[in-house]
Amino acid sequence: MPSRSQEKQSINTLIHAKWIARVSIDELLVDHSIALNQGIIIEVLPTGSALQKYQANSTYSLDQHLVTPGFINTHGHAAMTLFRGLADDLPLMTWLEEHIWPQETKWLSAEFTRVGSELAIAEMIKSGTTCFSDNYFFSQEVGKAAEKAGIRAQLCPTILNIKTPWAANIDEYLAKAEESYHTFESNPLIYSILGPHSPYVLTDNDLSKVANKANELDCMIQMHIHETAQEISHSLENYYCRPLARLDRVSMLDEKLQAVHMTQLTEHEMDLLAERNVKVIHCPESNLKLASGFCPISSLKTRNITIGLGTDGAASNNDLDMLGEMRSASLLAKASSSNATTLNATETLRMATLDGAKSIGLDKLIGSIEPTKQADLCAIKLDELANLPIYNPISQLIYTANRSQVSHVWVAGKILLKDKELMTIDTNKLKEEVQVWQRKLTL
Amino acid sequence: MPSRSQEKQSINTLIHAKWIARVSIDELLVDHSIALNQGIIIEVLPTGSALQKYQANSTYSLDQHLVTPGFINTHGHAAMTLFRGLADDLPLMTWLEEHIWPQETKWLSAEFTRVGSELAIAEMIKSGTTCFSDNYFFSQEVGKAAEKAGIRAQLCPTILNIKTPWAANIDEYLAKAEESYHTFESNPLIYSILGPHSPYVLTDNDLSKVANKANELDCMIQMHIHETAQEISHSLENYYCRPLARLDRVSMLDEKLQAVHMTQLTEHEMDLLAERNVKVIHCPESNLKLASGFCPISSLKTRNITIGLGTDGAASNNDLDMLGEMRSASLLAKASSSNATTLNATETLRMATLDGAKSIGLDKLIGSIEPTKQADLCAIKLDELANLPIYNPISQLIYTANRSQVSHVWVAGKILLKDKELMTIDTNKLKEEVQVWQRKLTL
Repeated sequence: MPSRSQEKQSINTLIHAKWIARVSIDELLVDHSIALNQGIIIEVLPTGSALQKYQANSTYSLDQHLVTPGFINTHGHAAMTLFRGLADDLPLMTWLEEHIWPQETKWLSAEFTRVGSELAIAEMIKSGTTCFSDNYFFSQEVGKAAEKAGIRAQLCPTILNIKTPWAANIDEYLAKAEESYHTFESNPLIYSILGPHSPYVLTDNDLSKVANKANELDCMIQMHIHETAQEISHSLENYYCRPLARLDRVSMLDEKLQAVHMTQLTEHEMDLLAERNVKVIHCPESNLKLASGFCPISSLKTRNITIGLGTDGAASNNDLDMLGEMRSASLLAKASSSNATTLNATETLRMATLDGAKSIGLDKLIGSIEPTKQADLCAIKLDELANLPIYNPISQLIYTANRSQVSHVWVAGKILLKDKELMTIDTNKLKEEVQVWQRKLTL
Repeated sequence: MPSRSQEKQSINTLIHAKWIARVSIDELLVDHSIALNQGIIIEVLPTGSALQKYQANSTYSLDQHLVTPGFINTHGHAAMTLFRGLADDLPLMTWLEEHIWPQETKWLSAEFTRVGSELAIAEMIKSGTTCFSDNYFFSQEVGKAAEKAGIRAQLCPTILNIKTPWAANIDEYLAKAEESYHTFESNPLIYSILGPHSPYVLTDNDLSKVANKANELDCMIQMHIHETAQEISHSLENYYCRPLARLDRVSMLDEKLQAVHMTQLTEHEMDLLAERNVKVIHCPESNLKLASGFCPISSLKTRNITIGLGTDGAASNNDLDMLGEMRSASLLAKASSSNATTLNATETLRMATLDGAKSIGLDKLIGSIEPTKQADLCAIKLDELANLPIYNPISQLIYTANRSQVSHVWVAGKILLKDKELMTIDTNKLKEEVQVWQRKLTL
């Protein structure tokens, strides 16, 4: 007669958790386990049953933890983490024109991008993010840094029509973006799309070229759109219409557009976004800090528009902490809609996970804890005084937990953070490299 | 010839810090030390000089830390921490009338207040708060809990004209408040004032009694005022004027009034507040979460009105973390004034320290790092990846640090938090007591 252990199914990883928020279903699971094999979630079941059914190479007993899908940071500029705190408390255009762009002109390089991206990725993994979107130059460096760390990424190579150390004109930017797309085409964790900066830095002809390239590659586009009131007035003065109307003219307003910020929207524009299934990426802390305006979350949700959440770059946030961003998103949505029931804790967690996945077209792969999905997970230890008492763990997650409580992170089943320690990144080496850049940037 | 050490001045404590933000002066000190003796700051000087001049019983070398005045949480309801997360995502009146008040009616007692206050105090010390203001029933229990933990407190015994387990009518509430005032009169760390709940729960006659009692005791008054638009319309319907006008009629609008929330203000009202030197207490996260409105920080600051910062109770925030509150205050002030330069990092730190002290009338004692002031201090270790690079430590404090980075806290020279460990509170015992209440409250 075979022993009990021989009857068990061998798998890679078994995670026993006090609480599990699957997100696809609102009900919270208590004392359940997640079985992972070959990077995939194969079953979610009561811990008692899991112990009888599975034999795992690695087992994690997380008895004070809430396990959620890994957070999806749908908008950022990883390399700009090197500019964190360099120019605070300034309006968007002053900040860009007098500080960020001159610094970028001076320092932008493959090496700058590599170090800044590694710093950002380390911070993101430590705070529970398993997938990030990145709009920047030298996107292959960003992709390599993500690959090295084992995190999932959507690359949106910046497209401008201004000479920078990366490219000289729109055609060269498009060529770089296409190169990035093909480089990562067969990489299961890296997806490269197009990242035109904004309607205000591109002509109608440039925008058409971007739209055509996206059609040719059959990929999504992520762009800063309707970020500030000034952007709207600039467009009205120069193009006699609002930026969204320009994008509509070049057939860019469809389900493949990820529209970042969107703080300035008319009722008609929101109806149009809903009709065309345009995705909205919400960056509440960046919008607050740069005083850009308020994205009308409540009105967008009423229209069932998909909304992902992003931190934006650390130069305008100033951290890449999705837990903090969720809290800000929830609090701000209530205040700006004058309705305290807007964006409750459960909806906020969904915005940072499953809705984020939908917004970047990856919801078949990631964003919820369901069999057949990729094992992109995060565990948060809810044992601090500031979390007690615990009536509703999701509420405590959104309104009381912070990044220092994220204990474990897995991407495609691989552990990237274990008991708060980074497993794929040399923190000391990274800190030294950051200090070198800190010295350069303050010259 | 005497040895060098014999020439040195003996003191209690010497704190060597990488950075010191005195707040009274904007300039940040690098590699300086703070000398403390008998609970008082006696000198702030370069570390090299401090080592030559002083011999201390206790020395702290904080080489990656920013030392600031301890944070002053100018509004809260400590005991309500036991309600944290019990009823989220609800509007103020639904939350109060259908959840908080019924629970309070059922459970309010000296023991409930003691345990809730101890939990709140532990959380506040861990997050850098050295002085808190508390509006609640059973204020003597709150005072005893503060005394036991060694934290500084302003007690604002709640005054209503409704029967609760604490008092039956306005006169009994006033008697309790007076008793609390006298109990702590000779206590150097506890100040007991008056805490009438709000204009909407008190008649003009009740308000007059409160104003008279404050005059008699020569103490300040803290009250929730103009918290929501509904409060204004309720007042217009029932008293044919706005709440501030009612308070003016009973001569309450003066320098001894701490007006909490103030999200609904006309230009005329703001001029009046400035003229009368009324103090404003700002609770941004509570206002956001309950969708109460936006306190016009920029307009108040233009008029040089003193503004303190408060977390409000954990039942409507949901934490008592002043670092988080500072960040929310700064971000929200920029967005609500459409000006990214509003409430910069330095001004935000001042709101949570020196301006907070001014708002509760304690700025001669606390709120800045200056000789002769009480040694109420807090150290934050700025060594996380999310804090790097460091161009401006104050910016990193406000925009990137979180409560888990607070390492040391002193009140009147006594250490309450040492290397993140609470020195005057038994955390395990406290957690057990909280669990008992968690079970009761979910019955």
